[in-house]
Amino acid sequence: MRGRIGSMALLSFASFVFSDETEPSTVVSVSVFVAVLCLCIVVGHLLEENRWVNESITAIVIGCIVGTIILFSSKGRNSHILRFNEEVFFIYLLPPIIFNAGFQVKKKQFFQNFLTIMFFGVIGVFISFAIISAGCWWLFPKVGLSGLDAQDYLALGTIFSSTDTVCTLQVLRQEETPRLYSLVFGEGVVNDATSVVLFNAIKKLDFSKLEGWAIFHVVRDFLYLFLTSTALGIATGLLTAYALKALYFGRHSTDREIALMALMAYFSYMLAELLQLSGILTVFFCGIVMSHYAWHNVSESSRITTRHIFATLSFIAETFIFLYVGMDALDIDKWKTAKTSFKTLSGIYGIIISLVLVGRAAFVFPLSILSNYISSKSERQLITFKHQVIIWWAGLMRGAVSIALAFNQFTYSGVTWNPVHATMITSTVVVVLFSTVVFGFLTKPLITALLPHHSQESTDHKDDNMPKDDIALPFLSADSSAGSGFLQAKRSLSMLLERPVHTIHAYWRKFDDKYMRPVFGGPN
Amino acid sequence: MRGRIGSMALLSFASFVFSDETEPSTVVSVSVFVAVLCLCIVVGHLLEENRWVNESITAIVIGCIVGTIILFSSKGRNSHILRFNEEVFFIYLLPPIIFNAGFQVKKKQFFQNFLTIMFFGVIGVFISFAIISAGCWWLFPKVGLSGLDAQDYLALGTIFSSTDTVCTLQVLRQEETPRLYSLVFGEGVVNDATSVVLFNAIKKLDFSKLEGWAIFHVVRDFLYLFLTSTALGIATGLLTAYALKALYFGRHSTDREIALMALMAYFSYMLAELLQLSGILTVFFCGIVMSHYAWHNVSESSRITTRHIFATLSFIAETFIFLYVGMDALDIDKWKTAKTSFKTLSGIYGIIISLVLVGRAAFVFPLSILSNYISSKSERQLITFKHQVIIWWAGLMRGAVSIALAFNQFTYSGVTWNPVHATMITSTVVVVLFSTVVFGFLTKPLITALLPHHSQESTDHKDDNMPKDDIALPFLSADSSAGSGFLQAKRSLSMLLERPVHTIHAYWRKFDDKYMRPVFGGPN
Repeated sequence: MRGRIGSMALLSFASFVFSDETEPSTVVSVSVFVAVLCLCIVVGHLLEENRWVNESITAIVIGCIVGTIILFSSKGRNSHILRFNEEVFFIYLLPPIIFNAGFQVKKKQFFQNFLTIMFFGVIGVFISFAIISAGCWWLFPKVGLSGLDAQDYLALGTIFSSTDTVCTLQVLRQEETPRLYSLVFGEGVVNDATSVVLFNAIKKLDFSKLEGWAIFHVVRDFLYLFLTSTALGIATGLLTAYALKALYFGRHSTDREIALMALMAYFSYMLAELLQLSGILTVFFCGIVMSHYAWHNVSESSRITTRHIFATLSFIAETFIFLYVGMDALDIDKWKTAKTSFKTLSGIYGIIISLVLVGRAAFVFPLSILSNYISSKSERQLITFKHQVIIWWAGLMRGAVSIALAFNQFTYSGVTWNPVHATMITSTVVVVLFSTVVFGFLTKPLITALLPHHSQESTDHKDDNMPKDDIALPFLSADSSAGSGFLQAKRSLSMLLERPVHTIHAYWRKFDDKYMRPVFGGPN
Repeated sequence: MRGRIGSMALLSFASFVFSDETEPSTVVSVSVFVAVLCLCIVVGHLLEENRWVNESITAIVIGCIVGTIILFSSKGRNSHILRFNEEVFFIYLLPPIIFNAGFQVKKKQFFQNFLTIMFFGVIGVFISFAIISAGCWWLFPKVGLSGLDAQDYLALGTIFSSTDTVCTLQVLRQEETPRLYSLVFGEGVVNDATSVVLFNAIKKLDFSKLEGWAIFHVVRDFLYLFLTSTALGIATGLLTAYALKALYFGRHSTDREIALMALMAYFSYMLAELLQLSGILTVFFCGIVMSHYAWHNVSESSRITTRHIFATLSFIAETFIFLYVGMDALDIDKWKTAKTSFKTLSGIYGIIISLVLVGRAAFVFPLSILSNYISSKSERQLITFKHQVIIWWAGLMRGAVSIALAFNQFTYSGVTWNPVHATMITSTVVVVLFSTVVFGFLTKPLITALLPHHSQESTDHKDDNMPKDDIALPFLSADSSAGSGFLQAKRSLSMLLERPVHTIHAYWRKFDDKYMRPVFGGPN
């Protein structure tokens, strides 16, 4: 990403030399892809009440099936159009997902749990990264794999530290366990940003003259990126809010408002990439600021539309990614290039999956205890052991970020002729498929077992607990514009009465009401 | 299009070999493009009340300015990223515009004026095509341009027969002159489809063994394409409506509904292109059917969101196109290749613009009289002379379709080294710029002069007369789901009482109520 992101962009279309009659298969591919996306949506909907399957698994399985069909019907010729492309992922698919995460996040919960989320999302990634890197470096040669250098091992650490919490979030119910949901959700976003930033920091390391200070450089770079990216996202969000408030006052034009919000969000991401910052963090905070200020400056229909359209775009991008990953498993070129014995391969898969399990356990439980220790002083709700297990489990799935980083590290433009590198790519794909399908498969039963009330009415009220669907209750959205229903409101109210509001939050509310909202907009 | 469309598609991304550090300018380009789009939206909004300027002109002018800045700042190096790309246009930008046209069209008005719209949109294009082709063939050699063959002249006829009515539609007020609006709007869509289909028919003609029957072949192909494309669009729309009704009954999931509608619409377009049909017609009728049936099967928030999001996508695509055309004027490679004297160039521009004016007058006025003659028997409102002038004027602007067809005819993948062909490209760009800016500039004053009541309150109620904004009145949308306000409702009612409803329409309503709506959905 960063430096690499540009080459794939829309405008490079223009200089792309294509041939007319020789490549009619691409229009077929787009049609097939769109048709299969529709199929995924319909099947995902039909299987919604199923106890085991979720939409990620559906999409991956359908992707595998379609990939197989295409591969056979084209006699192996077409496998290259199914190849996962990290550039498409980072330019087109990731931004809407992360922006929507910021736009729909329950801001109050998120900021109240900010410290714990940072523990998991930042320190956790560093711990997991250290364990997986060291583990791979120690164990890979034992199963007969050699040929990786120090940077590759460090990269593997970040590749397999980036989680994919979509599966778990599809099952958890926000209004029943708001804190747990917020932790899993928040960690997911911060984890994405941390692993990408860490990955880039490692790519920049000069291993020829490595010294003891390298780790400090990485940490310093990381902090710098974190703060500047956040600042950029907040600035873009505030600018949009101000523009909408200053220019559109009194005469609303829905199309322009929606277009401006979506384009400015995308612009913040691209600008961050352009400035070599972390687009993920930028667009996430841009989403938070936009939902806090800009969203209140637009017309009623714009509010409804933006809520739903960002969620829909994110939904399509997620489905697309899982479908893509499913199809990518059929990239036979990589399998041919890998040339690794079955025994070694099984060894590699076993090592990685074990390290993922251990690496995550190594920080979730200690950091939860630490968080509980700190929280106990501030009268906050503690993270129970059951919740710790769910948090641990939620981050076991590996997703598209892992694959994108692996492609970035081990291929050049998606192609590699190095057998060891090809093995790393196929291993990543296998781990992603395995973790999503097997761990994902067990998620619903596990959560049902740990949180028994989840088993009832987990589907018939599905829509009510989605943060995007409570648009009908704008009066609740004062400080959590994605507040969910009366239950939540009652609970918030009783919480407010029972215990003192955190001082920082109270100060912020005062500042927000007095200085920010008059300028940038907010609920009246 | 058609055969050529595929090569540019999303998945060809995957096989596109890009370089990392050598091409960092593309991420800059995307950022610049998105930022400039935002600028266009803001400036367009600020100039909304301006008497002369409209959003198309704003975008074109901003495009030219930005193009100049980029060209200078890159010392002429970057002109190639600004080149107009017909594939991007036909795969990504045109489908949302045409689908939205179908989705928002006032179906009742459209079908009541169907015959007149077909006169203008089909027969009109043939007449204009004949006049422009013959005129160019006769006059171009007189100003010193030679080197074009018979097919080129025929292609020029279609290139300059395709209109762009966006400018006029931005000024006309639908609820004041519903029939005029419907005619201009309907002609715009049918004209796009006709010129693209005719262009493809001409490209297929074998000029080496041309015989007298060729014209009949063209007409036969045209009718075949027209009917099959329409049928495909209707079929896809009905399938979507049925799927939404059958699968989502009782438990609505907004994200899935919106995603399914958008993806199926896009799928219909791609499928039509895949089957060598006219995607424009298909996606237009798909939009009509979706708004008539599918739209009633989804949740309330999906209805609001789809209305707005399709309008917004269309708005962004339109702005993008005008911006693109503006930037494309700076494609200095073409200007260098052209090597034509200033005198010849001025001659060419003069000839084309005169032929456009004459070619359009040659069918608007006679066909209006013919339509009035037929309508007078059926007690329909006649097309007054003032309205005829507005219809004539509305179709004088040339737009992105002209440029896309010119690139298809005279370049290979956007590149040409033939001076005559380069001259044709630059002439097309100049005619499009001239007609959009100069004719567009005069549109508001002209319409204000011809329809004086347009001058008052033409901006403060802007939003009310947009078909997409009357979502708050769902009870009006029974047979024109984009009905606009109480005035319109009152007028419709009095029209219904004053004169007999057309028999065909009455039969269709009966059939629709009895057989179609129970299966595919509709207002209760």
